[in-house]
Amino acid sequence: MTTVDIGNGRNGSTEGKPLVHKVEMPPKRSFLKEVGSGVRETFFHDPPIQGFKGLSRGQQVLQSLKFLFPILDWLSTYSLKMFFKDFLAGLTIASLAVPQDLGYASLTGIPPVYGLYSSFVPPLVYAVLGTSRNIAIGPVAVVSLLLGELLKQELSPTEDAAEYLQLAFTATFFAGIFQAGLGILRLGFITEFLSHATIIGFMGGAAITIALQQLKGLFNLFQHFTRHSDFVSVMRSVFGHIDEWNWRTIVMGLLFIAFLFSAKILAKKKPKLFWIAAIAPLTSVVVATAAVYLTRADKHGVHIVGHVKKGLNPSSFHRIFFSGKFTARAIKIGLVCGLVALTEGLAIGRTFATLRDYRVDGNKEMISFGFMNICGSFSSCYVTTGSFSRSSINYAAGALTPMANIVMASVVAITLTALTPLVYYTPNCILASVIITAVLSVVDVNAAWLIWKIDKGDFLACMGAFFGTLFVSVEIGLLVAVCISFVKILFHVTRPHTAILGNIPGTTVYRNVAQYLQATQVPGILAVRIDGPVYFSNASYIHDKVLAYLEAEKLRVEKINGPKVRYLVIDLTPVTNIDSSGVQAFEMIEKAVKRQQIQLTIANPGTSIMRKLDASNFISRLGSEWMFVTVGEAVQVCTILLNLQEA
Amino acid sequence: MTTVDIGNGRNGSTEGKPLVHKVEMPPKRSFLKEVGSGVRETFFHDPPIQGFKGLSRGQQVLQSLKFLFPILDWLSTYSLKMFFKDFLAGLTIASLAVPQDLGYASLTGIPPVYGLYSSFVPPLVYAVLGTSRNIAIGPVAVVSLLLGELLKQELSPTEDAAEYLQLAFTATFFAGIFQAGLGILRLGFITEFLSHATIIGFMGGAAITIALQQLKGLFNLFQHFTRHSDFVSVMRSVFGHIDEWNWRTIVMGLLFIAFLFSAKILAKKKPKLFWIAAIAPLTSVVVATAAVYLTRADKHGVHIVGHVKKGLNPSSFHRIFFSGKFTARAIKIGLVCGLVALTEGLAIGRTFATLRDYRVDGNKEMISFGFMNICGSFSSCYVTTGSFSRSSINYAAGALTPMANIVMASVVAITLTALTPLVYYTPNCILASVIITAVLSVVDVNAAWLIWKIDKGDFLACMGAFFGTLFVSVEIGLLVAVCISFVKILFHVTRPHTAILGNIPGTTVYRNVAQYLQATQVPGILAVRIDGPVYFSNASYIHDKVLAYLEAEKLRVEKINGPKVRYLVIDLTPVTNIDSSGVQAFEMIEKAVKRQQIQLTIANPGTSIMRKLDASNFISRLGSEWMFVTVGEAVQVCTILLNLQEA
Repeated sequence: MTTVDIGNGRNGSTEGKPLVHKVEMPPKRSFLKEVGSGVRETFFHDPPIQGFKGLSRGQQVLQSLKFLFPILDWLSTYSLKMFFKDFLAGLTIASLAVPQDLGYASLTGIPPVYGLYSSFVPPLVYAVLGTSRNIAIGPVAVVSLLLGELLKQELSPTEDAAEYLQLAFTATFFAGIFQAGLGILRLGFITEFLSHATIIGFMGGAAITIALQQLKGLFNLFQHFTRHSDFVSVMRSVFGHIDEWNWRTIVMGLLFIAFLFSAKILAKKKPKLFWIAAIAPLTSVVVATAAVYLTRADKHGVHIVGHVKKGLNPSSFHRIFFSGKFTARAIKIGLVCGLVALTEGLAIGRTFATLRDYRVDGNKEMISFGFMNICGSFSSCYVTTGSFSRSSINYAAGALTPMANIVMASVVAITLTALTPLVYYTPNCILASVIITAVLSVVDVNAAWLIWKIDKGDFLACMGAFFGTLFVSVEIGLLVAVCISFVKILFHVTRPHTAILGNIPGTTVYRNVAQYLQATQVPGILAVRIDGPVYFSNASYIHDKVLAYLEAEKLRVEKINGPKVRYLVIDLTPVTNIDSSGVQAFEMIEKAVKRQQIQLTIANPGTSIMRKLDASNFISRLGSEWMFVTVGEAVQVCTILLNLQEA
Repeated sequence: MTTVDIGNGRNGSTEGKPLVHKVEMPPKRSFLKEVGSGVRETFFHDPPIQGFKGLSRGQQVLQSLKFLFPILDWLSTYSLKMFFKDFLAGLTIASLAVPQDLGYASLTGIPPVYGLYSSFVPPLVYAVLGTSRNIAIGPVAVVSLLLGELLKQELSPTEDAAEYLQLAFTATFFAGIFQAGLGILRLGFITEFLSHATIIGFMGGAAITIALQQLKGLFNLFQHFTRHSDFVSVMRSVFGHIDEWNWRTIVMGLLFIAFLFSAKILAKKKPKLFWIAAIAPLTSVVVATAAVYLTRADKHGVHIVGHVKKGLNPSSFHRIFFSGKFTARAIKIGLVCGLVALTEGLAIGRTFATLRDYRVDGNKEMISFGFMNICGSFSSCYVTTGSFSRSSINYAAGALTPMANIVMASVVAITLTALTPLVYYTPNCILASVIITAVLSVVDVNAAWLIWKIDKGDFLACMGAFFGTLFVSVEIGLLVAVCISFVKILFHVTRPHTAILGNIPGTTVYRNVAQYLQATQVPGILAVRIDGPVYFSNASYIHDKVLAYLEAEKLRVEKINGPKVRYLVIDLTPVTNIDSSGVQAFEMIEKAVKRQQIQLTIANPGTSIMRKLDASNFISRLGSEWMFVTVGEAVQVCTILLNLQEA
């Protein structure tokens, strides 16, 4: 091999312009700076407090208070006109909330009144602390079901009713501690490990599971209904006791389901009529309750809600287990439910923020959710979060601030103090109908179809979570979702894409020859691009792959009698990071090609790559003249050298 | 915004050359092809059988046999000259193997003779099936210790000696099944999840742990030595029983350690004298045994090996638990030991293959290891793999083929059938000295230092594994190593690097302004590069980050009174893959910037990115005219449009 020296940027210029440019070595950073920048990007990429500079002490205090209690921020510019909108929205969601609360509580296995309690204190706390303007807080179907499933593994909701409730409050307390803790420690990115696809699958599966649970109310099967939530057990319960079916509840339930769905479809077609869908559940409840009262259907076996205790939330601080054998289990249950509640709530908050073009601070939201559940656990509430059905009604009704939550909480409070006797005759089948129509809209077939079109692996994850939830249990479905998400990440980093590059005619641009069919390879030179970071998990794959490309290229050249490959250009543009195994892989590639009389050249190494290749002395061993800013310049220099060698 | 149409490649040409090039949409692939290519890259990137085409049926059979039994391949060109080299190498490693085997077996807690058995059958099996030319097979220190630790959790090696051995064979059997299974299912990449850094740390910690264990033999503490392997317990055992120290064994042991280390250093300085280091252990054993025999030191408390059963490996097939309570535990132990053995063996095979410029097939190696352990478990052997100390001696001695393993096995066989009475008087302290010098060379301080220089995160992983092994247990150290490796992967995919791009003066190249300080941003245009795949785990981070860059840029422009940002160019060169969450993130970015009257343009999307953006209709919504092959062309078009808007 000739020893012509084409020092980068030093010679070989045309028309005064340098032929090649020097790859810049980024300025050295100290160890602390390096760690600091890693920590900052991981935990503080959205700094909690901004724009503090240049303010007086008083303004700083005010700014901090506004940061801690966002209510101070929006109340300072609040107007009567805004209140009017929030008031209407609050009323609308309250009319949806009351029937939902009664039903969701029984999903958890606790008396219906606790559902109402949970729609009173938490929304008030959120209104003070939260940053989302459209979210509506309350118990949600999936978390209610999940909490119920986990609690029933420990205790019986009927035989150990008191302890069962205590465990529920304790789990709620720890869910809050966990949520607030994640927010304070800025570990919000943990919720991102549940992928969009798995959430779609899990929510869909959970929604159908919840709908199936409602068959108990719809068919009036209060004697022999299974404790399990999987499809097979529920079907066996429903069809194994046909003799217990009550035609009154079935007819009433189906009629109302038809009514509620029609209202939904109408609202979807004419968005201005959203209020019809919003008040339909309450209307149904009123009509059904009146019907039962007038016909005394409860005497004919129609199951009714019955007596609901009057009065606002009683304190439950003394009912939380702070020690004893149930504490550890409550922590576990709280962790799982807290995480699911957080994921759902954050997703809803982000969705509406994007629609209205404002930002919700993920870590702050977590702290709000956390405090609202801690306060809730002290006042007889179970785990709450942002509810999808209520939030979308709230959004459609034009809510502008969290004031809508305050209005809703007030209506619930009035219900609790004065109106509970009215729900005595409410048939359970109407609650079942309300819940079925609410949850089935969560089954997002379009989203699943889009996922199928975009990414088959994602679709697999989606279906795994869906069927796991439907046929085993909510817990297992969630576990499947998390596992598949992780396995996906691991697969992605194990087999990065690689490509052979060719020149796009008439340019100095090099692109994947499999994508740009007009791109042509330059004789004597093989240009390869590695598409992704080179880590321990893929270093030996990358090493093998690059050498395999070289082998294949040699064979191809031999067949067409072309010039031998003398230069290997590795484009590192997409290689954003390497670790010590990655550096080792490059060293091994360099040694392997050198033995074959081939010169390795590197194109466009990034900042951290340059640092690491330098620290390992790779650059000085290879020679910094073989590092180029672009593939184009690398090929240009190699071509010149090839011509010199021939001459 | 003006509506000038700069269709890609359609108009705006200079000197006949097109101004911009069209981003190619890769040819559509069917679902099966897509899945197929994923499976191929994951499992078959190195197809097991190549070059089958164009061969006759007979040749194909021969080729297949050679593939299944590589011995047929190399034997067909074997010569006497080659045998001479292999013979010498085999003799050399045998002289190292015998003392090591006796010592390693006691690390596992089984009688010394089983160490010798394990150096007879497995090397023969490997010689038939294996593809590495330099690896030397036998029991290794780390696996012996790990196996011993795990077995002792189940049974006592002294009180339940028979069952203990049975459990060891059963674990070996399942280790083999697991190894062969991984190879057959082509899941070899699982071993890659142990990063280089964690292996360095783990091996270092294990080596010191093993050396510490040898203090038992060195100080003659056979009465009260701890069963634990952590640093603190061992130190307590050694210094808590000073009255039991035997000065004879200490002096003898230290003398031989000094001798063995000197031999090693000499061999390192003068590579031609490698054989001195190779035969030093056997020489030491012979000298020490003679000394004990002549002085009858065993009567003065010097612990000796004692009676070793004569004869070749007895069958142990009937001793394997195929059912009963120990089977499940043996499977667990076999899994862990099998994985560690595999990782070590594969690493050694790869290292020497690189030095000699040939390839070992990872999946085939696993099958060889698996069969060798299965056969071993039937013939009284415990888990074996490639030994680092023996393989490097084998390499230095010039071994050319696995024949060296056959020679070594033959020497061990002769020892077993005829020479076992000779080791009766061998003092245990000399075995301890041999092991200490063998394992301490595994502690690779230079590698650790290099890791520190290259990547601080890697170093943390390395130290975690090191201290976990040293201060808790080998098992925990391994667990720490694996966990840190996984957490590292997750961190990497959660917070990808991003950069603002600037133009390198005099070119159309755009590079990170933080790396290339001379790179300048173009007024009115913000170019951002995303350095890595956009997945669910980082999609919302990327979304936030890009919009934050835009905010910062707006502020910067406001300060210097520059022109408003009207175009956002996102360079997707390093984005090698996206999933449905990633597509969603781009959609949300597009909506967000549109509301700010900013046009999004995409530069250099890769094959799979184009497919996915197309499947989700992102391209048709954005308009394919806003997709560019390079950042340079995107900026060029945006600049023209900016000028038109001004005019």
